[in-house]
Amino acid sequence: MSLTAGILTVSDKCSQGLAQDTSGPALRNLLESNNWVVTHTDIVPDETHQITQTVEKWSQTCHLVVVSGGTGLASGDVTVEALEPLFTKKLPSLAIAMVAGSLRITPMAALSQVTAGIVNETVVVAVPGSKKGSTENLQQIIGVLPHAVDTACAGRSTRQIHNM
Amino acid sequence: MSLTAGILTVSDKCSQGLAQDTSGPALRNLLESNNWVVTHTDIVPDETHQITQTVEKWSQTCHLVVVSGGTGLASGDVTVEALEPLFTKKLPSLAIAMVAGSLRITPMAALSQVTAGIVNETVVVAVPGSKKGSTENLQQIIGVLPHAVDTACAGRSTRQIHNM
Amino acid sequence: MSLTAGILTVSDKCSQGLAQDTSGPALRNLLESNNWVVTHTDIVPDETHQITQTVEKWSQTCHLVVVSGGTGLASGDVTVEALEPLFTKKLPSLAIAMVAGSLRITPMAALSQVTAGIVNETVVVAVPGSKKGSTENLQQIIGVLPHAVDTACAGRSTRQIHNM
Ligand code: NA
Repeated sequence: MSLTAGILTVSDKCSQGLAQDTSGPALRNLLESNNWVVTHTDIVPDETHQITQTVEKWSQTCHLVVVSGGTGLASGDVTVEALEPLFTKKLPSLAIAMVAGSLRITPMAALSQVTAGIVNETVVVAVPGSKKGSTENLQQIIGVLPHAVDTACAGRSTRQIHNM
Repeated sequence: MSLTAGILTVSDKCSQGLAQDTSGPALRNLLESNNWVVTHTDIVPDETHQITQTVEKWSQTCHLVVVSGGTGLASGDVTVEALEPLFTKKLPSLAIAMVAGSLRITPMAALSQVTAGIVNETVVVAVPGSKKGSTENLQQIIGVLPHAVDTACAGRSTRQIHNM
Repeated sequence: MSLTAGILTVSDKCSQGLAQDTSGPALRNLLESNNWVVTHTDIVPDETHQITQTVEKWSQTCHLVVVSGGTGLASGDVTVEALEPLFTKKLPSLAIAMVAGSLRITPMAALSQVTAGIVNETVVVAVPGSKKGSTENLQQIIGVLPHAVDTACAGRSTRQIHNM
């Protein structure tokens, strides 16, 4: 039994082909190095409806959804505001762990509005859109995500969890 | 004049006698070692109404209420969702202090949704249900709790505060 | 092109002339040492309406507003509750950075309910009212505030940002 993940890149430019998605492949590499199976990847613009629609769909099959981008301070950054209304449970301690850990690498971590919560028994985590920021944040919590998924998805036979 | 505390263990199994409450006695020991007088202890199941009813009752006499358990990611974990609507003031910095401090001991601290706030001028803190997690989290803030109580309970003659 | 800041001291006693405002001048010194131009300063009592009215007015011209005081646990501390409804975007990572950084200096940092968010494309930060607490908290994030302002005030020609 594998733990499955979806990676959603949120970026106007990447969705239009005007920039290359670097965080998506970097997150995939990080997840696969930790024995996750990445079953879904996609790129959507900074549009609330496209973000929520994709996360809700993937939450029906994936154990984990990582959303990258749209976490800055600009008015066009809508990822956190899009995701939080979907959460049946907010997981602020995961966000604190990402921020507090990333701050030990760079003070710029204070500028990314990361968040985490549960949607349809799936753990959903929002990380920054840069390759560096996205992987630095996910790295802070990747070791405990199997336990998070195991607790959140109690009905889904995810008990084959890594020893920690 | 003593500082008084109630300790509420939230656990379906402990409330049914199917498991032993280990966090409650450990928290009592930690509080008493820090000169708190524990005036109330109880065990309730993971039921919103029983949690809120007990906290509201104790908040009329205790300076501090520590709630242990029901802080995980499962849908049956309702402690944070039960408590936060009672808070007249949320105290997120106390929660950040618990999480950030506990993360230096174990990355698993990212998985406990601790919270803190004020109910009827009483400081209420939610910590994990395990003996280890509950005491590690409370230990992070126990030194400042007399000051917290002193400010929150301005009308209760709690001015006899430890020097810090 | 300079980055401009307003500093609002919230204190019943200071507003009545019964105590001296020490955090305001200390914050001004810290901001000016970091090349900010302080264009507005004022002292208001712990009154929601006076806090919000001043912050909204200043947010039409300043890049940054720092609000000092009213962040404790007493029922008369209303700064956080006054500011958060004004935020078009909440910036919890800035708050985590202030708290986590300040906790390395003093455990008392757990008792100040700091917050941060955006009002009218202006970054607004609430810090404690003491000289020590206010500067310790702002110091944690002062290096990234030009980037914060640059992203939040995208339409305001603030691109002349310090190299970091
Ligand atoms: Na799901």
